[in-house]
Amino acid sequence: MKLLSFTYKNGNGGHKKSYGIWARDGVIDLGKRMGDRYPTIKSLLAGQALAEAAVYRQQPPDHCAEAISYLPVIEDPGKIICVGMNYAEKRLEFNEKNNEPTLFIRFADSQTGHNATLLKPGDSSEFDYEGELAVIIGKSCFRTSVEHAMQFVAGYSCYMDGSVRDWQHTWYTAGKNWPLTGSFGPYLTTQDEVDDPQALGIRTWLNGRIVQDDNTGNMVHKIAELISYISTFTHLKPGDVIITGSPGGVGKKRVPPLFLRQGDRIEVEIEGLGRLSNTVSEAHFMAEEPCLS
Amino acid sequence: MKLLSFTYKNGNGGHKKSYGIWARDGVIDLGKRMGDRYPTIKSLLAGQALAEAAVYRQQPPDHCAEAISYLPVIEDPGKIICVGMNYAEKRLEFNEKNNEPTLFIRFADSQTGHNATLLKPGDSSEFDYEGELAVIIGKSCFRTSVEHAMQFVAGYSCYMDGSVRDWQHTWYTAGKNWPLTGSFGPYLTTQDEVDDPQALGIRTWLNGRIVQDDNTGNMVHKIAELISYISTFTHLKPGDVIITGSPGGVGKKRVPPLFLRQGDRIEVEIEGLGRLSNTVSEAHFMAEEPCLS
Repeated sequence: MKLLSFTYKNGNGGHKKSYGIWARDGVIDLGKRMGDRYPTIKSLLAGQALAEAAVYRQQPPDHCAEAISYLPVIEDPGKIICVGMNYAEKRLEFNEKNNEPTLFIRFADSQTGHNATLLKPGDSSEFDYEGELAVIIGKSCFRTSVEHAMQFVAGYSCYMDGSVRDWQHTWYTAGKNWPLTGSFGPYLTTQDEVDDPQALGIRTWLNGRIVQDDNTGNMVHKIAELISYISTFTHLKPGDVIITGSPGGVGKKRVPPLFLRQGDRIEVEIEGLGRLSNTVSEAHFMAEEPCLS
Repeated sequence: MKLLSFTYKNGNGGHKKSYGIWARDGVIDLGKRMGDRYPTIKSLLAGQALAEAAVYRQQPPDHCAEAISYLPVIEDPGKIICVGMNYAEKRLEFNEKNNEPTLFIRFADSQTGHNATLLKPGDSSEFDYEGELAVIIGKSCFRTSVEHAMQFVAGYSCYMDGSVRDWQHTWYTAGKNWPLTGSFGPYLTTQDEVDDPQALGIRTWLNGRIVQDDNTGNMVHKIAELISYISTFTHLKPGDVIITGSPGGVGKKRVPPLFLRQGDRIEVEIEGLGRLSNTVSEAHFMAEEPCLS
């Protein structure tokens, strides 16, 4: 099953948020059917209601694909934990020597969805792509072993971990939290549909040209190890997201460097998980509005 | 005005959460008076209702100090942004050369309150103290200038940024997010009561012995600069917290090192902001509970 969050136009010319099942010929609206109890995918996961949702998967779609706008698969994860330097080639490029997972945090308000704008900050001349596999947690978990870790996974998605390199001064916080720089989608593919999440082709395209091409089998720290490691020190809950790191080939380490610009189309495709596509816009943030006290 | 979050015993032997005004002879319960509209300090700040709360400050207290248990001043900040290497002495100790603020994130569920347990992970033999000034945001802010930054501050508090050094592998995330390692309190002192937040004595005591002794005037990046810098890339909202870094003298850099152990009393006092006190307990986490599917 593939679950997506979206908005659609309601009768009054406004937009309504919902979520549903992605079907080849449209979207089956779960918000309409279960929204009173589970208003979002995150609450559906927290309610352990995936099986209940699956009952609706054979129904005719409510929206055609063109009628919806994608949101981040989960708009407000409690925790978005990002893993740096987790592919062999990337580690070589960045001369990374640490053996433990390197972790940084994205805030939920840095996200955007499939086909939506990815925002290049006007302050940056080094806005870079990083195509990654996102793991969505389905059940609460604390101090789990590697052996048990995978049973806490709800599913997987693509993630464009857009990186503002010239603000990645030290611990990446400032480079990874600009508005609309982290694209999450197009949908969550439930784990039962993914035979082996460590054997998926992962590719990033910039304007149709492949710029990253690897396989999730080349992760240094595998998904189960990451869940076990992270859950050693912090509780993971339904809807939390682990972004598992980018392969080599990022723009910063190319000669000459290759950064994202206004109008670029950047896409991440992971085998079986769909193709996440975004167009880059240059940010024109409004001038500061002083607080009115 | 000094605001605190707390629990108290209700008539049924249970505990009830509330918040209120700290008075010398007890606590004036604001939850009772305004809780229908503002159930927490965070919502009080979001509602710009500090002036309304101040109306009650001359009323007799509802609870004596001994009858309450302190919670973190704000239990669930949207963002807790921590600044590393922000005092001259600390930078020397850690040989820090970066000129930009170094930022890392604490999750809200890593917090504890005044007089409550500070939890030393059993997995660690290097649990360290870091006494810090916490800045609590009072009004939403994005891309503010240094000149305007201070008007977005609600107030200040003490923070014990407990650090699991042997898990601070790279970007600090794993060392700073263990349960009950970040103590926040005892209370928020509103900014109108703090003449100059950059001229406050800040001291940490370990079992009554001073182990850190500095002044907030020695911050490398001042509060206004931090707010301006952080708000360049992310929105700050009421209840968000910026922890402004620790002076030198931490246990990791002493010869011999001085780490926290079961039964230790660790205290942070900042001039005018009170004295935050915690007793260290060694964690005995329950064994993993495998998920029941």
